[in-house]
Amino acid sequence: MNKPVTAEIISIGDELLYGQILDTNSKWLSEEMDKIGVRVVRKTTIGDDPEAMIEAFKSASKKADIILMTGGLGPTKDDLTKNVLVDFFNSSMKLFPNALEDVRKFFESRGRELSPTNRSQAYLPSNCTYIQNAVGTAPGMWFEENGSAWMSMPGVPHEMKYLMENAVIPRIKEKYKLPVIYHKLIKTIGIGESWLSDIISDWEDQLPPHIRLAYLPSLGEVKLRLTGFGESLPPIVKEVDDQIAKLEPLIAKYIYGYNTDTIASALGHELIQRNENIAIAESCTGGYLSHVITSIPGASNYFNGSIIPYHNTYKEHLLGVSPETLASKGAVSEETVIEMSKQVRLKFNSTYGLATSGVAGPGGGSDEKPVGMVWIACHDGEKCWTRMLQLTKDRIINIQLTSTASLNLLRETILHNRK
Amino acid sequence: MNKPVTAEIISIGDELLYGQILDTNSKWLSEEMDKIGVRVVRKTTIGDDPEAMIEAFKSASKKADIILMTGGLGPTKDDLTKNVLVDFFNSSMKLFPNALEDVRKFFESRGRELSPTNRSQAYLPSNCTYIQNAVGTAPGMWFEENGSAWMSMPGVPHEMKYLMENAVIPRIKEKYKLPVIYHKLIKTIGIGESWLSDIISDWEDQLPPHIRLAYLPSLGEVKLRLTGFGESLPPIVKEVDDQIAKLEPLIAKYIYGYNTDTIASALGHELIQRNENIAIAESCTGGYLSHVITSIPGASNYFNGSIIPYHNTYKEHLLGVSPETLASKGAVSEETVIEMSKQVRLKFNSTYGLATSGVAGPGGGSDEKPVGMVWIACHDGEKCWTRMLQLTKDRIINIQLTSTASLNLLRETILHNRK
Repeated sequence: MNKPVTAEIISIGDELLYGQILDTNSKWLSEEMDKIGVRVVRKTTIGDDPEAMIEAFKSASKKADIILMTGGLGPTKDDLTKNVLVDFFNSSMKLFPNALEDVRKFFESRGRELSPTNRSQAYLPSNCTYIQNAVGTAPGMWFEENGSAWMSMPGVPHEMKYLMENAVIPRIKEKYKLPVIYHKLIKTIGIGESWLSDIISDWEDQLPPHIRLAYLPSLGEVKLRLTGFGESLPPIVKEVDDQIAKLEPLIAKYIYGYNTDTIASALGHELIQRNENIAIAESCTGGYLSHVITSIPGASNYFNGSIIPYHNTYKEHLLGVSPETLASKGAVSEETVIEMSKQVRLKFNSTYGLATSGVAGPGGGSDEKPVGMVWIACHDGEKCWTRMLQLTKDRIINIQLTSTASLNLLRETILHNRK
Repeated sequence: MNKPVTAEIISIGDELLYGQILDTNSKWLSEEMDKIGVRVVRKTTIGDDPEAMIEAFKSASKKADIILMTGGLGPTKDDLTKNVLVDFFNSSMKLFPNALEDVRKFFESRGRELSPTNRSQAYLPSNCTYIQNAVGTAPGMWFEENGSAWMSMPGVPHEMKYLMENAVIPRIKEKYKLPVIYHKLIKTIGIGESWLSDIISDWEDQLPPHIRLAYLPSLGEVKLRLTGFGESLPPIVKEVDDQIAKLEPLIAKYIYGYNTDTIASALGHELIQRNENIAIAESCTGGYLSHVITSIPGASNYFNGSIIPYHNTYKEHLLGVSPETLASKGAVSEETVIEMSKQVRLKFNSTYGLATSGVAGPGGGSDEKPVGMVWIACHDGEKCWTRMLQLTKDRIINIQLTSTASLNLLRETILHNRK
């Protein structure tokens, strides 16, 4: 096997060390490097601190062929990356006229004057290749120094992504001979990591050393990742796919999809195939379940709509749950979610009606119905499938787990109807 | 000033380097360290690779007083942290009977048998202090070695948080004399970073060196963070608060709150104070706007509910938008969002009705109504406030920006009514 081309990701910004923003950039960068066969060997996060930056740059240049840096390029006074790069490369700062022109045009197109602060963004280290940022004002900078390729980008996610897609990834593909890595993800739902591991243990033990397995658990789901390494793609793809063919019968009822499929996208695909559609009555999930479904492009093909009768009055008056049921059983009950799913299905003239009602927390619990108790239902016109969930004390986690479980209930209903 | 107590966060897992999961743990850990005055100086992410782990451990022990490690403690075969810690500390693996007892009880309470894989989780490095994990099966391990304190925790977020809150933070507070840091966040909405920076530039320049300013932009919002450093809290709090009192008049109309306030929580507080409530008709936001509102505990005090008439039929039949308006102006129009906000306000008998309708993308655009074109409206019973947004090509970003802009429109409506 060829020596892999390696990358390090350096994220710069006090706000990352103080924990005041979540670093989604480095995850995205990792995924993109992985796709083109570059191996990310480390990610380092440091503050707006010149000493820490120099130390990180030195260490990275020993460790990786490609160093991707984000952050510290804004127009404001706490942004230091450019100056530190000048020091590190023993370079000097100079005005790049084309950078100035691009920043000017950027503001012109929005009908705004160039501020002095924005003007300073056209001064860059003289040894860099200027990379135009068409979606923002902080320019990208590409360096080839010390045997490594260096790219400095702003920390604003859509600007960073623009620079990567339009300049950095093409340059990396041109400069390096990239090895072959093949990943495949198997997405499961409704079973925990340990139980999955016990079921597939014998299969796992017979994997050859150049095919690796990882468990990636998340709320209500476990992804299995198989990674094959080799010299050319077709034999690796075949080997990995053959292994997956052996795995599938062991856990068939838990698998909902592969790779970039989500439970929502897999269900959407299935509903389109079957020419069916859904409507939702959300109480405790408060819009999140609908959001998960409508995050998928094209959801309008199978999602008719929702009613969120958050206040109990509207469970009766807008959705049509009977006042007797609400009075005798309460909003969080099997009887209520059955009526909710039945009514919403009728109101939106849909194949399936989904409903959620529970105590999301942190307040509102009782001995009989504690925080984390949730009822969900899926009505297919003939039968209503229900489930009670006993979740956590955390409001957001309860909302997310309920949504995932509701989608799984819909999946099981569809599977049942398919038989 | 005392020498600060420093921490490094080491996140372990191939899935982080491959970009297949988002690291939310290190953000949370950073925030918690920040709150108790521990300075996070670096975050390092490495794979399930013994050599990289040893290198990171060595480097961390030179850099930080406290080393917080997450990941690689699961029951499955790709989890290596425990074995590498044994090597690194030149220790040995032994069975901790109390750990075995705790794992056994964990499964017993869930009515399940201990699997052989789970049993192996009670074997730990002999030099560690075993820390009970009451919410999962991977034990925590605390070490005091090489002049540093080390803590190894599972990567599952709620397990890591349980260990931090119940064992690690109390131990750190006991072991170290912690210095004083005071942060205050000022939350603004409706103005970009550069414009904000130009408005407050003179104020920024007069800040003393022990008070630092940072700009934290996110979708549709900019947070300003002031950080004061010193020896005791009261004078720092006073100095920072005095600086903020000077800042506020410059940008008063953009400030919606402070510190942990979100635009949704600040509006919730305001609605409770005014004994008012809201209802929402969501089209292009598909449930996300309701979710943002219902993420706030106690939202049921002011959020009556929503209708999501995703398919146009239901804008007419369920919500009551006139078929003439839909036919002549289309669903994405000022006229339609005005009717949506008016109707949903009446249906839910609410003080305010909010409505969204737009082309979220990536499909569905036309020359006249391109992807990213959105109309939002807020009806207060007398007047309807509307705004047209020209957003991006990205579906999820459009959904988020529309929700933030809708909340800002509600804020402005309330501000207007308050006069």
